[in-house]
Amino acid sequence: MPRFAYVNGRYVPHPDAAVHIEDRGYQFADGVYEVVPVQNGRMIDEEPHLDRLDYSLRELRIAWPMSRAALKLVLRELTRRNGLTNGLVYLQVTRGVAPRDHKFPKAAKPALVVTTKRMNPTPAALVERGVRVIAVPDIRWKRCDIKSVSLLPNVLGKQKAAEAGAFEAWQVDAEGFVTEGTSTNAWIVTSDGALVTRNADAAILNGITRQAVIRLTNEVGVAFEERPFSLAEAKAAREAFLTSSSGHVLPITRIDDAVVGDGKPGPVTKRLRAAYLGYVAA
Amino acid sequence: MPRFAYVNGRYVPHPDAAVHIEDRGYQFADGVYEVVPVQNGRMIDEEPHLDRLDYSLRELRIAWPMSRAALKLVLRELTRRNGLTNGLVYLQVTRGVAPRDHKFPKAAKPALVVTTKRMNPTPAALVERGVRVIAVPDIRWKRCDIKSVSLLPNVLGKQKAAEAGAFEAWQVDAEGFVTEGTSTNAWIVTSDGALVTRNADAAILNGITRQAVIRLTNEVGVAFEERPFSLAEAKAAREAFLTSSSGHVLPITRIDDAVVGDGKPGPVTKRLRAAYLGYVAA
Repeated sequence: MPRFAYVNGRYVPHPDAAVHIEDRGYQFADGVYEVVPVQNGRMIDEEPHLDRLDYSLRELRIAWPMSRAALKLVLRELTRRNGLTNGLVYLQVTRGVAPRDHKFPKAAKPALVVTTKRMNPTPAALVERGVRVIAVPDIRWKRCDIKSVSLLPNVLGKQKAAEAGAFEAWQVDAEGFVTEGTSTNAWIVTSDGALVTRNADAAILNGITRQAVIRLTNEVGVAFEERPFSLAEAKAAREAFLTSSSGHVLPITRIDDAVVGDGKPGPVTKRLRAAYLGYVAA
Repeated sequence: MPRFAYVNGRYVPHPDAAVHIEDRGYQFADGVYEVVPVQNGRMIDEEPHLDRLDYSLRELRIAWPMSRAALKLVLRELTRRNGLTNGLVYLQVTRGVAPRDHKFPKAAKPALVVTTKRMNPTPAALVERGVRVIAVPDIRWKRCDIKSVSLLPNVLGKQKAAEAGAFEAWQVDAEGFVTEGTSTNAWIVTSDGALVTRNADAAILNGITRQAVIRLTNEVGVAFEERPFSLAEAKAAREAFLTSSSGHVLPITRIDDAVVGDGKPGPVTKRLRAAYLGYVAA
């Protein structure tokens, strides 16, 4: 457990870190969050994460709880106080505390909570053997482009995956297209060799790792397409993988009971993983 | 502001009522709630509210935080301490506190928060003149039958209504059918005189007031149908109204810019409102 959390202006011992029961994050899921990876003491892609925070806040018309510069200082100070070298910084902004009423309160001050978490690197076995995902119906709301704390369907999907012994659940929309995992983006290399990930519309969260990997696709020498792909296309793919801030680029070797390609992490996945790790280390 | 809240085993002064920042209600909207009206010191339809709480908890596999009998004692004790005669009791149950991870925690203890709120009766002017609703796209998740705190889309809809000077927003699904308001159920009396409300599938929350009013429909001598109705059908209706625990049966006289019927609360609405108030008083 981390030693400290930052809560609305104060660094407090983690066990005492609390918010009021009428914080709108608690009663309405009226808030957003970001998770910034920390590696060797450095925050990875902090600016894109804060850009996305800004997008989420603007879409919900929640004000920044402090200036961007001040927030960056808080992230650094908490990381320092908790002696975090490898892991992540979690930050959550809600619309603040107000007597319960659906509509926006007139006077609430946005609330800010920051915590950190130590994390070990992804186990080598997962990277070498690949992981399994299961397919679940996508039952989420229609604004998944906003990184809101309205995560109950993601929780239910991830739990289903865990109970099936899988690493993640791929959510499938009413038309049979894979949107994304419950906390990861979804990628395939199709049977004819094209690298595909879903275009970033309101059906998915535009992952920061997803965006970084897209910038690296020109290094791996395959055609790249941003478009929806179906579950059937994924099961017939040569390769599949997921991207996320904590898992980076992680090969998928089974989707439900279908073996992907030859059942081993594929060459495009490996090259992209290496390229991404190189980018992070640089 | 009420004097006390109940939080995880203790009655605490309302300003001090807090939950841990890693309560899953705060980070994942992983919890449910109920709002029980209190009138003349008596809880209205307490048992159906607790039945629905049980349904929501079972669907999410969250355990009851205490026995039903114990919870009823807490609701009574808080109502007594706060001297609440007319208003509502709000109770929220979440999956509890655990280090942030999407899947269900192995050891978390469900968290329980209860508050009360004084409320005046609906202003007579609203009842006499009726209210206006606007139509908004239904962007919610696909399990609206669970009364979860995942209410962000409802918040956004209610805010849109408030900014349009309307009382409520009716959410309209992809097929053009009205599902429900952001915190109320939707009813119409069609142009040929049938009383209609949407059937209670996963697209709506099965309101306790909705259920009570359905039981009263045989008293008003009109045909009653539980089925989806379109926004167009609603705009061409003779009457429209909404039901909720706090608004009871409230006439709607305008939908967007369409005047409903002759622009005044209709006879079926009035009879149902009277019947419902009679039921509550009994």
